[in-house]
Amino acid sequence: MAEEHKDTVPDGSLLAAIDIGSNSFHLIIAKIEHGEIRTQEVLAEKVQLGAGLENHQLSEEAVERGLACLARFAQLLSSVEPTRIRAVGTNALRQARNRLDFTLPAADILGCRIDVIYGHEEARLVYLGVAHTLADDAQSRLVVDIGGGSTEFIIGERFEPKRLESLQMGCVSYSRDFFPNGHISAKNYRKAYDQARVEVSHIRRHYRSKHWAEAVGSSGTLNAINAIVAEHGWSEGGITRKSLDKLEKKLLKFEQFDEIKLDGLTDNRRNVIVAGVAITTALFDILGVEHMRTSKGALREGVIYDLMGRLSHEDVRERTVNALMQRYSVDQDVAELVERRCQILFAACRGPWKLADEDWELLLWAARTHEIGMAISHKHFNRHTAYLLRNADLPGFSQEEQESLAVLTQGQRGKVPTELIDELPKQERRRALYLLVILRLAMRLKHVEFLEELPAFGIVAEKMTLALGFPEGWLESHPLTASELEQECSALGKLEFSLSLS
Amino acid sequence: MAEEHKDTVPDGSLLAAIDIGSNSFHLIIAKIEHGEIRTQEVLAEKVQLGAGLENHQLSEEAVERGLACLARFAQLLSSVEPTRIRAVGTNALRQARNRLDFTLPAADILGCRIDVIYGHEEARLVYLGVAHTLADDAQSRLVVDIGGGSTEFIIGERFEPKRLESLQMGCVSYSRDFFPNGHISAKNYRKAYDQARVEVSHIRRHYRSKHWAEAVGSSGTLNAINAIVAEHGWSEGGITRKSLDKLEKKLLKFEQFDEIKLDGLTDNRRNVIVAGVAITTALFDILGVEHMRTSKGALREGVIYDLMGRLSHEDVRERTVNALMQRYSVDQDVAELVERRCQILFAACRGPWKLADEDWELLLWAARTHEIGMAISHKHFNRHTAYLLRNADLPGFSQEEQESLAVLTQGQRGKVPTELIDELPKQERRRALYLLVILRLAMRLKHVEFLEELPAFGIVAEKMTLALGFPEGWLESHPLTASELEQECSALGKLEFSLSLS
Repeated sequence: MAEEHKDTVPDGSLLAAIDIGSNSFHLIIAKIEHGEIRTQEVLAEKVQLGAGLENHQLSEEAVERGLACLARFAQLLSSVEPTRIRAVGTNALRQARNRLDFTLPAADILGCRIDVIYGHEEARLVYLGVAHTLADDAQSRLVVDIGGGSTEFIIGERFEPKRLESLQMGCVSYSRDFFPNGHISAKNYRKAYDQARVEVSHIRRHYRSKHWAEAVGSSGTLNAINAIVAEHGWSEGGITRKSLDKLEKKLLKFEQFDEIKLDGLTDNRRNVIVAGVAITTALFDILGVEHMRTSKGALREGVIYDLMGRLSHEDVRERTVNALMQRYSVDQDVAELVERRCQILFAACRGPWKLADEDWELLLWAARTHEIGMAISHKHFNRHTAYLLRNADLPGFSQEEQESLAVLTQGQRGKVPTELIDELPKQERRRALYLLVILRLAMRLKHVEFLEELPAFGIVAEKMTLALGFPEGWLESHPLTASELEQECSALGKLEFSLSLS
Repeated sequence: MAEEHKDTVPDGSLLAAIDIGSNSFHLIIAKIEHGEIRTQEVLAEKVQLGAGLENHQLSEEAVERGLACLARFAQLLSSVEPTRIRAVGTNALRQARNRLDFTLPAADILGCRIDVIYGHEEARLVYLGVAHTLADDAQSRLVVDIGGGSTEFIIGERFEPKRLESLQMGCVSYSRDFFPNGHISAKNYRKAYDQARVEVSHIRRHYRSKHWAEAVGSSGTLNAINAIVAEHGWSEGGITRKSLDKLEKKLLKFEQFDEIKLDGLTDNRRNVIVAGVAITTALFDILGVEHMRTSKGALREGVIYDLMGRLSHEDVRERTVNALMQRYSVDQDVAELVERRCQILFAACRGPWKLADEDWELLLWAARTHEIGMAISHKHFNRHTAYLLRNADLPGFSQEEQESLAVLTQGQRGKVPTELIDELPKQERRRALYLLVILRLAMRLKHVEFLEELPAFGIVAEKMTLALGFPEGWLESHPLTASELEQECSALGKLEFSLSLS
């Protein structure tokens, strides 16, 4: 059903990706030509959303800076269809408990949802963006992306990431934590360097140099370092360990960030370059990197390539759901049965309940994965399913999608998890409830159908009501199903949803 | 190391098992002869612990009844070595939030810990008990055990359970919920029967008659029904669907439990027989059982056979831990490294900290499974490991052991989970902290050792203190390890535990 509604992307179409980072926001608009991507516009602004993060709260000023930047981006987006725009948020939004204060108005400005993604997913997308800029050779490579709040490490071959890791260290957060008021000293620098060493040492086992053939840096920080090093002639191409020493020595001569003057350094990097060099040097030392070249490919390009896949039947989320079903030995028959039942109910309800294609996708994924928790234990398996969907690294999914799947699958039976629904943004709550009603009804009819034919039945949906009409006498002759459905009527009644049977 | 301290069980040894059930308590004392078990003593008392359960609280009276019964059992236990006694608690104790009010004094009376086990584990042990009473033929069988608070369903072959399920319905809880004040009516009976049908229908798919060749009933309720049916000549052996009809008709002629008089019915079954028949009839109907024979084997025999395995190097818990490591693709090298490190620390600390063999077992299992949560996500993997160890069906483990493993593995790194430790019974807290200290130190030294040799170091333990002495200059030349260990000193300092380095 999702498939039916999916367009393929015709040549000449425009796609857009927005990367809402902790340091900078990036916009890319690209055109599809012969199935390849050709960049049309690239914008970057230093917003430093992450600098406005204290105690997991974004400051009002940071929110305003961010929204103002998006308003400027939006001017360029008018030529792009909303379904072909994807905006992703990274570490600053992952950390911010008040993220909705930013993401809801941001969605209004851009005309598309803001997907906050986990570090693991960020790493996957970065790799995708970088891999497309490199030669398609089979040697394995380490890709590093030093962001404002987190640093991603990926080992991959060709277009396939093999290992993904995201560490909590970034050039904005380290600038704030180790260089208060922008003050530079050898001692401050040493502290930042030491802490970065400790962080990186936790992944040393699988990431040190014997595991890859070449190192590639992405992101503003590493490209900035590369530019300075090249400008000064400290290396013959790329960043070397020696060139970092020279850069460090230069930087430590300054006492304040805003005094820094270096050929090749742009103004918008001045406040984060010292922390960036400390992190880079630490990871060179711990992982045994001798030389790193840089790539202009980054998260935004990865999002564009991923979006192109989604729009043309290569949705990595499908692959992820299949992998989950395999790993947790899902009974295919049950999954398909529930999927079919959901499909019938969804088709009848989507109009009156104003449901969209993406709602069907959620429901479909929930149907396919609803029993994965049984691999942990039959008891409370719905909670285990929800735990896995909420916490697992699921390539392609945003945090919100994972949370929605968790709410749906936890509520597939038993008590309706109203406390979880109440935590959703207000405009999402009714939609979540509608999807839950469909899934729960499919579950109530699950056991029955293995043993008896379920007859065709009437479905009439209206706002917050659903009427099911069975052939005369059928419910009476199937008292178990009747009792299950009656229990459902009363469970949903508590949510002011009216389910009626006849 | 655990192995070293394990005895084999010499012929002539006595073993004892106590089943602390929701309806009855059972004691069995058996003697090992030629590796087989010969029953010496069997006691059963109707305590109805489950009847004293309201809002998940055991009443004072129920606790007193239970402890008085155990005091009587204890008289017979003086001839049995404490390490050869195992006491298990089932549904009433699973449900009771104030279970410690019972289990702590009970442990004092019996001289051994009370292991509260999950329904899944109860089902496994019941099967073990029943299987030993049946011919060793290869046909698959359904074993049903209707307890006071839960009913276990097992499909197995020979001594191997293949499917285990525990449903929340039992003869004590159904008597209380559907027959208030012991009042019998056709309507009450119908309600109990219908509810049991709904419960059983959830497992119908895998348990109905096409999945097994014969049905065997265990437990007091099914043996009581069998006795009445035999006494009246309603079947030619075993329980049949028709004989249940006749029994139901007889029972519905009475208006109160205490008026029931039936040949073959013992006094202590009078209050639960009506609910028992309703549950039995429902499961016959839903699963398509036509005939069921009964077995005297039950939970207590299962516990005895399991205990014999534990005492003679066939601990099913070892097998469970190995299965976990396989399912979640644990890196063997890392697991063994942490195990070795734990072993060295445990050997040095066990005397001063008064640690026992079973503490070593916990630590060993924690070391082997500490990384299983990585299969869910690297981020917060310690929490995922704890989630799995707390919630998974782990054959052989008690709830308390699973909880202890969860506390240990969650606290393997990062913040010490003091809130979890505080929830443990008071006398367990220090022990848990000691084990946690050992595991955390093993973890701190984990990364280091992959890359460098860790030198032999001195370990001096005293009450709430531990001093590690490294060769001169080693810590200075290994600043990463030094920094990890210093962080550990301060983390443990908050718990009033003093770790010192030199």
